[in-house]
Amino acid sequence: MRYVIRVLLVTPEVRRAAPSAVERAKIELDRALGASKLLVGEAGASYRADDSDVLGPSPDVVVLASSAEDVQKTLAIAERHEVPVTPRAAGTGRTGGAVPAAGGIVLATHALAQVKDIDRVDMLAVVQPGVVTGALHAMCEKEGLFYPPDPNSLDMCMIGGNVAENAGGPRAFKYGVTREYVLGLGVCLMGGHALHVGRRTVKGVTGYDMTALFVGSEGTLGVFTEVTLRLVPKPPQIATILALFTDVHACGAAVTRVLGRGIRPRCLELLDAKTLEAIRGQVSIDPRAGAMLLCEVDGEALEDETERLGEALSQGEGVVDVLVAQDAAQRARLWAGRRALSTATRKLARHKISEDVVVPRSKISELLRRVDRIGEENATRHLTYGHAGDGNLHVNFLWDDDSERPKIDRSLELLMRATIELGGTLSGEHGIGVTKAEYLPLEQSSELIELQRSIKKVFDPKDLLNPGKIFPAKGHKAC
Amino acid sequence: MRYVIRVLLVTPEVRRAAPSAVERAKIELDRALGASKLLVGEAGASYRADDSDVLGPSPDVVVLASSAEDVQKTLAIAERHEVPVTPRAAGTGRTGGAVPAAGGIVLATHALAQVKDIDRVDMLAVVQPGVVTGALHAMCEKEGLFYPPDPNSLDMCMIGGNVAENAGGPRAFKYGVTREYVLGLGVCLMGGHALHVGRRTVKGVTGYDMTALFVGSEGTLGVFTEVTLRLVPKPPQIATILALFTDVHACGAAVTRVLGRGIRPRCLELLDAKTLEAIRGQVSIDPRAGAMLLCEVDGEALEDETERLGEALSQGEGVVDVLVAQDAAQRARLWAGRRALSTATRKLARHKISEDVVVPRSKISELLRRVDRIGEENATRHLTYGHAGDGNLHVNFLWDDDSERPKIDRSLELLMRATIELGGTLSGEHGIGVTKAEYLPLEQSSELIELQRSIKKVFDPKDLLNPGKIFPAKGHKAC
Repeated sequence: MRYVIRVLLVTPEVRRAAPSAVERAKIELDRALGASKLLVGEAGASYRADDSDVLGPSPDVVVLASSAEDVQKTLAIAERHEVPVTPRAAGTGRTGGAVPAAGGIVLATHALAQVKDIDRVDMLAVVQPGVVTGALHAMCEKEGLFYPPDPNSLDMCMIGGNVAENAGGPRAFKYGVTREYVLGLGVCLMGGHALHVGRRTVKGVTGYDMTALFVGSEGTLGVFTEVTLRLVPKPPQIATILALFTDVHACGAAVTRVLGRGIRPRCLELLDAKTLEAIRGQVSIDPRAGAMLLCEVDGEALEDETERLGEALSQGEGVVDVLVAQDAAQRARLWAGRRALSTATRKLARHKISEDVVVPRSKISELLRRVDRIGEENATRHLTYGHAGDGNLHVNFLWDDDSERPKIDRSLELLMRATIELGGTLSGEHGIGVTKAEYLPLEQSSELIELQRSIKKVFDPKDLLNPGKIFPAKGHKAC
Repeated sequence: MRYVIRVLLVTPEVRRAAPSAVERAKIELDRALGASKLLVGEAGASYRADDSDVLGPSPDVVVLASSAEDVQKTLAIAERHEVPVTPRAAGTGRTGGAVPAAGGIVLATHALAQVKDIDRVDMLAVVQPGVVTGALHAMCEKEGLFYPPDPNSLDMCMIGGNVAENAGGPRAFKYGVTREYVLGLGVCLMGGHALHVGRRTVKGVTGYDMTALFVGSEGTLGVFTEVTLRLVPKPPQIATILALFTDVHACGAAVTRVLGRGIRPRCLELLDAKTLEAIRGQVSIDPRAGAMLLCEVDGEALEDETERLGEALSQGEGVVDVLVAQDAAQRARLWAGRRALSTATRKLARHKISEDVVVPRSKISELLRRVDRIGEENATRHLTYGHAGDGNLHVNFLWDDDSERPKIDRSLELLMRATIELGGTLSGEHGIGVTKAEYLPLEQSSELIELQRSIKKVFDPKDLLNPGKIFPAKGHKAC
């Protein structure tokens, strides 16, 4: 469900292709791939959007690639005719990365959906970009293996998009984000040049870390055709603990206690007072609670670890309750509040924007204090939840009337500024895309941005691959 | 101690500076930094070498930088006069990365040795590049924290070099290599442009992963002035287990059993039959043993994990003995063999070269078989030890007479080819430097190499920063 649709205006910097060039490209694509792999006109209209609040122009043509060769041919034709290309897997991104800012070609890779190999001894998987993350989880777990990254959209999102955005999820705290699992990539560059970077081994330092450069590059450097992923053994057991606190500051102190004792829960999900209010209609929560922490531990020494976690959570000020789930049904009950979140918050207002900032752990309380102040000063409604272990907080602003948009934008900018002031970063797992490009200069120097633009030019000198993403453009405005 | 010295011939591609330009640069460096920070002539001669077997030309001047400003000024002056610069921390690298292939300026950063911050709550350290890795370990552990990367040279090597080479060590199997711990970098680019990349948070996906691009770039993209490192809680206890097997194949099977059961030892060091022979004079080892595995586990549930590890090691074919250390003295005894390795192997021959290949775990036995065959066919002596968990093997070739060098070179090339055939990579933790540059095309396509050269050009258009490293040069030969 999408709440706010801002139509992306194409600025002079995001160059659209000449109509005649587009026509020639379409003819060549038809010849090279066949009409059944192309969508034009209304049929391709749904490819204007992803799961952010921006809508791009309609693509001139959508290519439904079903092989690496299709990707190669498309990128060769696109470069020859200078038609921009926006790569796309499931389109579940939150920052407009898959929105075709310049129209042109959308190169959809969801039909490249083969799991080519799951290797139990070397503990790796070789998959195509269109494999659904949750489906890969299930396949790995059947083999006693585990692929940790678990973005919220795991039932829909695909590995190609996860790699492009360097997706995270609750389990990232213990296991790390997508970057930590990508060993190698089959990539196709603009112009159709196929490349293999990385390896099948866990270790390696041969030349520059090109794999890491592609991970999180938001489809601006190349289009993935194959991904080699490191896997780990499946944790045999999981325990869930829910802790309630009088306020987020007591909750933050508990997080510090847990980590200080060397406990590594696989997730540490924080819900603030306003988030608890939102879900109180759906689940019953102790009325004294002003913050919740939902923790999971896994691994071999589960009982011991659960006990230590319970102790660390309990032994402090402002603890209202600590509940341990003993079985699957109880685990599900503890997760009910967190799961109700999405539906519950959607009922609160017509519009919602969910940000994805990260601050050093020690600054979580301070950021929440500042968010409160921003809310008060701008009369905006907000709630915050997120991954407390790594300081990655989803600050949500809510509003009903379009006329409120300017104060929402002001609040967002103030949030970004507060994040940077506290030593944080603009995005933990959603990327920059188009929605945060204008804030990039708050975090990065103009020299660093220019350096990245120059790297982009090495891969794509004509700026045809996913133009308008990551980097701020003068005069570029979403309205 | 160095065994073989091959003098690096400078090829036309590695351009030396004009003597007049060098003179002008020296005058400016003297003016900007003062004579006390410069070494010229014989005083700088020891900067020709690192811990590899190559020796570069004498540097024209060695700059002993003691601040980020010194680094900036040096790189500005060097670019202005087009004098090549070779950055250097401790000079303990194994592939010639710190050898001044083009003479010119050696920019030594060992005096930038401040630990600026160790933050217990955010679990990070901010250090300068000249901090000795082992000293950082000690400081972190005093605070209850842990910096896992432990290259063999940890008592001498420095963080700057570790980051440049993406250093590993035995603990890398459980904890990952340097790359996994670098959050942010202060970098100075050629020309003297200071830059900050990365962040103080664990998570983040803002623009390209520039931090990862610098890690392992072997001093060719920039010079580090500050490193922000992620830390983890110090493991409260460690247990050591030594297992002996009839041969490496039985040992390989044991490794597979251990990992298959989800046990994550912090190290799994393998010693082959020839390595055991070498250390038998110094430590007593069961005469039936043809392979040794030295394992360490750490963490909270130590007893349980040790028991499970012991079981996994024992329950298979070809197990000679499994010994568990109960206390520190016993641990030291189990490590005695591994520690004796360096001295013992040095006694075996006048010359030794230690390679650093990696194969997928399932291919360890096969690689060892091929190494035996290469040894037989070329009448070269060899022994192999290394990090079995991640397939990173140090294959050593030994010889006495310089006349044997050609067959050693042939054996090295065959080793590299075998590694690639088995799906492996040329270097696990030593980098490419000059000693392996000629093999790079065995692993990487010419397109990929060209792409990396183009990235290098973005940072250093005149190829002045550590020229002659990583990339193969036509006609470039070490003799």
